[in-house]
Amino acid sequence: MNIVIVGAGRVGTSLSKALDRSGHNILRIISRSTEKAEKLANVLGSGYGKDLTIPEDCEVVIVAVNDDAIHGVMKKLKAPDKTVIAHTAGSVGLEVFGSDIVNYGVFYPLQTFTDGRDFNFREIPVFIEGNNDHTSSLLRSLAASVSETVIYLISEKRKYLHLAAVFVCNFVNHMYYAGKEISGQAGMEFKVLLPLLEETMEKASDLGPEKSQTGPAVRNDKKTIEKHLDLLSFSPDLHKIYQVITDSIIKKYTA
Amino acid sequence: MNIVIVGAGRVGTSLSKALDRSGHNILRIISRSTEKAEKLANVLGSGYGKDLTIPEDCEVVIVAVNDDAIHGVMKKLKAPDKTVIAHTAGSVGLEVFGSDIVNYGVFYPLQTFTDGRDFNFREIPVFIEGNNDHTSSLLRSLAASVSETVIYLISEKRKYLHLAAVFVCNFVNHMYYAGKEISGQAGMEFKVLLPLLEETMEKASDLGPEKSQTGPAVRNDKKTIEKHLDLLSFSPDLHKIYQVITDSIIKKYTA
Repeated sequence: MNIVIVGAGRVGTSLSKALDRSGHNILRIISRSTEKAEKLANVLGSGYGKDLTIPEDCEVVIVAVNDDAIHGVMKKLKAPDKTVIAHTAGSVGLEVFGSDIVNYGVFYPLQTFTDGRDFNFREIPVFIEGNNDHTSSLLRSLAASVSETVIYLISEKRKYLHLAAVFVCNFVNHMYYAGKEISGQAGMEFKVLLPLLEETMEKASDLGPEKSQTGPAVRNDKKTIEKHLDLLSFSPDLHKIYQVITDSIIKKYTA
Repeated sequence: MNIVIVGAGRVGTSLSKALDRSGHNILRIISRSTEKAEKLANVLGSGYGKDLTIPEDCEVVIVAVNDDAIHGVMKKLKAPDKTVIAHTAGSVGLEVFGSDIVNYGVFYPLQTFTDGRDFNFREIPVFIEGNNDHTSSLLRSLAASVSETVIYLISEKRKYLHLAAVFVCNFVNHMYYAGKEISGQAGMEFKVLLPLLEETMEKASDLGPEKSQTGPAVRNDKKTIEKHLDLLSFSPDLHKIYQVITDSIIKKYTA
């Protein structure tokens, strides 16, 4: 397909490379930052620019910009009626598309994207939605060309996936940070924890998280919990996090 | 070495198998549960029983029982003076050993142990401590025979590692559970989150958690945070966890 990508950030970069590898034709990278657009366009051999006027031969525009910026892009976008316009945001619905757009939808890859990191896009689930059958079917075939897992999901439901991602990615990463801080108190580096991180993930993946829960909270081992809270006196934030999560685990498993 | 293992639970099982594979001689498995002891002893070709009288030819006793049970074991244990006695608990110090024990220490493998799951013990860091040079040196060489990473660490510091493990294992697993609950609200299975779990771990491992933080909290994106808190009205516990961790991330990265 002939595709225009709006946004040369982490999602736009990763997605346009995956689409390019799958044989699609990236016509143009559009970004507020000419520098970023040029850099990405040079890798893909595509055009680039700031102007949001979409060429006649473009079949799909993918708008991979920050949630807050999507509305502004839609207001300036001048695209042929037949072109499908899709955004990549988990927590933004279809209402962001203006009434002058005919074919619109969502192309949400469930992953955390980072500059300079590459991963196998084929393993990432892509959640799609369209305002009509033509759009849904086109987005489905586009998603299927880069990923093995394509799921149609309406915005009301997709929002929950975005929220789930906050817990299993952003919050998990904050727990990793806490682990680093706390092992630092013993003069130990973060890397001593890595085998434990890996087994924790693999266990939850194999058995499900509910059958994998261990530790003082699930045993309601008040003596150890008290000792831990004492040790956390160096960080009021981690002390509070310890209490709230421990309470939740106790309530879930021992109530 | 000639070794007796007290405890046929998850740690005792995993550790005695690793020691056996490394060519040590497991003389006996001692457990309150004869059934468990017999099952494990049959795998290892060792003796088993309930009696805590340690044979003369035993060089090391490893006490792999629950934190609360260690003290009781020490009171009943009858071991030759020359035998080294070590427990495997991260958050229990040397004070648990009675005054009649001559050589004592700690052998703490930093990992989450699960019935029926096997992993590469060589990758697990083992933290050791001894009350004298002979004990420390014996425990170091025993640990080095099963693991590539052996670190001497006093109890006061080891406690922090046990606490760090609670964050990166038990609390991370509770975040996984939250992710499962929340994606369930959209009718989606936990497995759609797995590629995200994996990339989150690999990214933190490669870049460190502080350079890996993404999501609404680190951007201080109040609009998305409000939307998420609304969605969490179905679970007061997850609502509270979301708030506390989000506050901590905002404070750390945007204050």
